[in-house]
Amino acid sequence: MAGTPVTVIGMGMMGRALATAFMNAGHPTTIFNRTPGKAAALVEAGASEAPTAVAAVAAAPLVIICVRDYDAVRELLAPAEAVLSGRVLVNLTSGASDEARATAAWAAEHGAEYLDGAIMMTPPGIGAPETVILYGGSPSLYETHEKTLAVLGGGTTLISSDVGLPSLYDVALLGIMWATFNGFMHAAALMGTEKVAATDFLPMATDWLKGVASFLTAYAHQIDEDSYAAEDATLETQVPPVRHLIHESRIRGIDATMAEYTEKLLTEAISRGHALDSYARIIDHFRASVA
Amino acid sequence: MAGTPVTVIGMGMMGRALATAFMNAGHPTTIFNRTPGKAAALVEAGASEAPTAVAAVAAAPLVIICVRDYDAVRELLAPAEAVLSGRVLVNLTSGASDEARATAAWAAEHGAEYLDGAIMMTPPGIGAPETVILYGGSPSLYETHEKTLAVLGGGTTLISSDVGLPSLYDVALLGIMWATFNGFMHAAALMGTEKVAATDFLPMATDWLKGVASFLTAYAHQIDEDSYAAEDATLETQVPPVRHLIHESRIRGIDATMAEYTEKLLTEAISRGHALDSYARIIDHFRASVA
Ligand SMILES: NC(=O)c1ccc[n+]([C@@H]2O[C@H](COP(=O)([O-])OP(=O)(O)OC[C@H]3O[C@@H](n4cnc5c(N)ncnc54)[C@H](OP(=O)(O)O)[C@@H]3O)[C@@H](O)[C@H]2O)c1
Ligand SMILES: NC(=O)c1ccc[n+]([C@@H]2O[C@H](COP(=O)([O-])OP(=O)(O)OC[C@H]3O[C@@H](n4cnc5c(N)ncnc54)[C@H](OP(=O)(O)O)[C@@H]3O)[C@@H](O)[C@H]2O)c1
Repeated sequence: MAGTPVTVIGMGMMGRALATAFMNAGHPTTIFNRTPGKAAALVEAGASEAPTAVAAVAAAPLVIICVRDYDAVRELLAPAEAVLSGRVLVNLTSGASDEARATAAWAAEHGAEYLDGAIMMTPPGIGAPETVILYGGSPSLYETHEKTLAVLGGGTTLISSDVGLPSLYDVALLGIMWATFNGFMHAAALMGTEKVAATDFLPMATDWLKGVASFLTAYAHQIDEDSYAAEDATLETQVPPVRHLIHESRIRGIDATMAEYTEKLLTEAISRGHALDSYARIIDHFRASVA
Repeated sequence: MAGTPVTVIGMGMMGRALATAFMNAGHPTTIFNRTPGKAAALVEAGASEAPTAVAAVAAAPLVIICVRDYDAVRELLAPAEAVLSGRVLVNLTSGASDEARATAAWAAEHGAEYLDGAIMMTPPGIGAPETVILYGGSPSLYETHEKTLAVLGGGTTLISSDVGLPSLYDVALLGIMWATFNGFMHAAALMGTEKVAATDFLPMATDWLKGVASFLTAYAHQIDEDSYAAEDATLETQVPPVRHLIHESRIRGIDATMAEYTEKLLTEAISRGHALDSYARIIDHFRASVA
């Protein structure tokens, strides 16, 4: 039994992975890319390559687009505005929340329904049961297409009726990733000065991250309750160890920027009278900048 | 059956937890604190409070010390130098690797054997099977006392014969923790501007950290092999999303320092010709500062 016909626009690394997953799941698949001929293997496997963006959009009721950025989305789809009406546009391109909202408004003007998604995975993970794709848009529209979209990742969820939110979740989660990566690189370089291999340090670091996650659970509750009493590790008790980290970095000639930033966050919060609060109190710093 | 007699010096939050764990495990326990009378509950439960540091050290073959910092260790133990000979000093005070090495040399001068440890847990976790305490020092000395020390945490391990290394592991791991905490606080503040509760964002963040840990596993191998070819996410592809994070932060008035730092690390590595490498390449930045 064939699935809903789908069109995938953009045959970069990610677009090819998306189209492959749809084909593996039995969806008749049309593909299109600005530069033609980039997906020969897919065409050989039975995908039909549309000659123009207009033809690509016209080929299926469900149009997935995944290109470099939102400007590329608008450039590619401008010639196809006339055939958008009545179709569902699913935009899996990465961007910012304001761009997603503007693109949804533009799609609505041309009679298309719109879902915005953020793919929290690299191309090799597309189609896997644990792969998370976060969607924003109308819940009933999402429900109608949920089964088809779940072909791309089993962890697919609608997180909001606001099409801007997937982009915000995306960068918020990526920010946590980069912060952790940077912390690990700093740590691995420190250990490297004592000839400890990164793979020897690794199991300790990954076990430790489990403990860090459990602290975050406690902190998330404190943040929502706006109440930060420390049960054990106070802000005050974290100042000497962060200074040790700065010291160890400096005597080894290693960039201590991150540790200095942490020291600043701690001493700022302490000088505002929060010495006995937990680390969750640091949320004030990020909130305060809003005020 | 009574265990080895132990002395615990320092009755702060941590010292009290350590003494409690020893007593629960049946070790005759002597305690001492600069300011007396801080551990009435322990004395009531059968600990004997020594009147002086000398008496405390003399009371047991195994002396655990856990106070504010290494200066406090030396101040407290200076009057007890004459009775140190033949004893084992286990220093669980947090500090830096150079201080630990100096303290070991000082202990050796006075005929004491020495282990340095870093407690990777807050006081309520002392005694739990999963609690990690990292030791540095002579392997045979560690083995002799391993069972007794394991009373404080089931995850107790000797990581090196170098007494300086526990301090370095300690700050390296804490650095990863603070980096992740800061990333989470930034993310929670971003989500907060769209009225997403921290506890609603939390499960996504903690699941995501599992994925981050699996990337770190790949990166640790690349670091040790000094070979950084990206299988999927290249440094180049991470520049647009980090700029989105900076943009989302700025339009919401939120401190973007960490994202700007990540952008700098990425663009530096790219300008050195590493656009197609994985994030593990960022280790160069921390190593380069050493050179
Ligand atoms: N790769 C990942 O790990 C990953 C993970 C999550 C999300 N994403 C997101 O997925 C999207 C696509 O990523 P990718 O990995 O597939 O990137 P990619 O391999 O670099 O491919 C980029 C795609 O965008 C097209 N494109 C670029 N500029 C264009 C323009 N001005 N007009 C029309 N088309 C244009 C390219 O077409 P040409 O072939 O004609 O240049 C190509 O199809 C990005 O938003 C990325 O952030 C990627
Ligand atoms: N709490 C944690 O979560 C945690 C986790 C891992 C490691 N640690 C480490 O464990 C150590 C102790 O921490 P803690 O939580 O027990 O701290 P704490 O509750 O603040 O207690 C500090 C202890 O140090 C003593 N002290 C301070 N300055 C002294 C001096 N100049 N001379 C003699 N004694 C002095 C204090 O004695 P007085 O009562 O006389 O002031 C008290 O016994 C620190 O190195 C800390 O980094 C703590």
